[in-house]
Amino acid sequence: MPSISKKGQLMPESPIRKLVPYAEAAKERGVEVIHLNIGQPDIKTPQVALDAVRNHNLDVLAYSRTEGSEEYRQKIAAYYAKNEIEVTSSQIIVTTGGSEALSFAMNTIADTGDEIIIPEPFYANYNGFATISGIKVVPVASQIEDNFALPPIEEFEKLIGPRTRAILICNPGNPTGYLYTREEIKKLATIVKKHGLFLVADEVYREFTYDGREHYSILQEEGLDEHAILVDSVSKRYSMCGARIGSLVSRNKEVIQTALKFAQARLSPPTFAQIASEAALETPKSYFEEVKKEYVSRRDLLISELKKIEGIKVGEPHGAFYCIAELPIANADNFAQWLLESFSIDGETVMIAPAAGFYATEGLGLNQVRIAYVLEKEELRRAVHILDKALKVYKD
Amino acid sequence: MPSISKKGQLMPESPIRKLVPYAEAAKERGVEVIHLNIGQPDIKTPQVALDAVRNHNLDVLAYSRTEGSEEYRQKIAAYYAKNEIEVTSSQIIVTTGGSEALSFAMNTIADTGDEIIIPEPFYANYNGFATISGIKVVPVASQIEDNFALPPIEEFEKLIGPRTRAILICNPGNPTGYLYTREEIKKLATIVKKHGLFLVADEVYREFTYDGREHYSILQEEGLDEHAILVDSVSKRYSMCGARIGSLVSRNKEVIQTALKFAQARLSPPTFAQIASEAALETPKSYFEEVKKEYVSRRDLLISELKKIEGIKVGEPHGAFYCIAELPIANADNFAQWLLESFSIDGETVMIAPAAGFYATEGLGLNQVRIAYVLEKEELRRAVHILDKALKVYKD
Repeated sequence: MPSISKKGQLMPESPIRKLVPYAEAAKERGVEVIHLNIGQPDIKTPQVALDAVRNHNLDVLAYSRTEGSEEYRQKIAAYYAKNEIEVTSSQIIVTTGGSEALSFAMNTIADTGDEIIIPEPFYANYNGFATISGIKVVPVASQIEDNFALPPIEEFEKLIGPRTRAILICNPGNPTGYLYTREEIKKLATIVKKHGLFLVADEVYREFTYDGREHYSILQEEGLDEHAILVDSVSKRYSMCGARIGSLVSRNKEVIQTALKFAQARLSPPTFAQIASEAALETPKSYFEEVKKEYVSRRDLLISELKKIEGIKVGEPHGAFYCIAELPIANADNFAQWLLESFSIDGETVMIAPAAGFYATEGLGLNQVRIAYVLEKEELRRAVHILDKALKVYKD
Repeated sequence: MPSISKKGQLMPESPIRKLVPYAEAAKERGVEVIHLNIGQPDIKTPQVALDAVRNHNLDVLAYSRTEGSEEYRQKIAAYYAKNEIEVTSSQIIVTTGGSEALSFAMNTIADTGDEIIIPEPFYANYNGFATISGIKVVPVASQIEDNFALPPIEEFEKLIGPRTRAILICNPGNPTGYLYTREEIKKLATIVKKHGLFLVADEVYREFTYDGREHYSILQEEGLDEHAILVDSVSKRYSMCGARIGSLVSRNKEVIQTALKFAQARLSPPTFAQIASEAALETPKSYFEEVKKEYVSRRDLLISELKKIEGIKVGEPHGAFYCIAELPIANADNFAQWLLESFSIDGETVMIAPAAGFYATEGLGLNQVRIAYVLEKEELRRAVHILDKALKVYKD
């Protein structure tokens, strides 16, 4: 019998996937499950994007250009210009989701056995794409006590070796909600320049910054043209996760030329989704203002309610729509499963994402969970109430 | 300065890409370019698929299920049942194009340094995906004199070694148009069973078989359940190349479970494209009958006209919509460029795909080109006329 690859065996499962059967069983027992575990916003997609697809006039659904149409890329460049990021259309490749941009970036800069340093906890699929490419993720731990700020730059220095190719950050962070400051980006710029590394930034939550804080992109930092690779996506920005459109942006010509070869192999990004994404760029500013207001009020409610729980530790997220909470338990995997299997209040329970899957270091984050605030406030309030009561009776 | 990966340097460019600037220059000079080089059908997409997207009623363009919705996969299973292929929805993963299905298949069965045997000439992007995964393509040459039939099975036997993981075929073939017979599939089945290999078949042109010949799928062959992996796509079937929807199908549970982990990393296939693809399954039989009739008459015209050219050799395609022609020249790359740069008749010239890019063996196919018959007959006739006249004056 033929056997599957080592890579396939090593490939991590989504941290949530193993809980899905328990959630389904709960639903079958008639228990409502409040999903704090997913990053799928409930926010309405901008009408202009939905309508553009409704009004399409295609006769032949043909391949688009491998790198996305010139027109769409010019509009993306204009969007970046509004965000104080100066790039040209030829520095942009339209990708099938931020996922593909990340995969192109990794393949462009690293070979099997090469290393990429990532502050942990980090978006779990970075592990997946690294495994696919045979890249070793070298984690540098950030701390809940510091709000998951950038670890001291000396910690990065210690980890840089001959196989180190890049530092990868997510800003604002999934799962931490941390927004890197201008000073932190400058520190990273200094170190990647010093060691001849790439700096890859996943900035898909760019718009979701709160409390008057402003996002500072790696492409706003001077002197990084050869180093900076931006991974972007329309998924969260316009609540269009199902479009599967993102972009890879770099001023490094060789990076773009190489990423384009990877892009050619898969022919083109999806056409209907590009129609929607191009139209989405017309979304009025008021949309984002409302969405931001909604997220801020959800976050405020969530954090203040969580803080009332005895023994809990929680970061102060200033961006994205996640937070990490440290619970007074030993193992969040078991707790998450128990919540679905054995606990409910008035026919409702909660599904949370155990945070261990967001760490590369074995043993870290075992008592932490990621909570996404993509639900309405009333539901969030009930969810935290359920967590509170559950923690009072749960025995590890 | 950071440098790009070896993988990125090795990554092959599309065989057509380097001709694109010459084609653009020709157009700027006012010369019309007849594109014999591309596999983008001019056939209209089924109305039912276009309308389904026009009538979508989404409010939130959310992630779909990683493996595609249960409903869509059940309908795909029903489509296969009509084609005498018995599979269940749980044996199907919906992918972002056939490209992604191929990439999942390669990653599932092979690690860096592993080998996959492929009859050449083959679809050039197999090389790209193999390079991305560090897989060595081991070619086995098929011959224009045999119509590119399956090479003798002893030729495969000779190439099987400890790192061999699979045999990959395209049936019917791009770029050859060859349709493997039931006997040839049985021979491949015997050898993969004997050596414990996977048999991967790209069957995206399944419907495009001519002259009363019937397609025989690797999933129709008994005893191959653990070996067979099918790569499929809606792109050519419904003239929906821009949808980017395909599928990976296997009865091997471990293959599906592993491919699903790769699928999880990229979250989900595009939602609008799935709406179109699900609706496309309702396409009436008459659509395919008409499309087939059209392709047969194009092929007949193309082949008979090509055969009139002195010194030309051309296969007899019984499937897909390509043929390979061997020209009385030394180097098709130079000839293709010359056609765009220096030749025209009545303000028209022709763009062809040099076939060397479809071979893995250095030096093979240098005097061959791939011609796609996805254009109307009158254009095909003019294109062959231009080729004929060009060959009469061209000097290598």
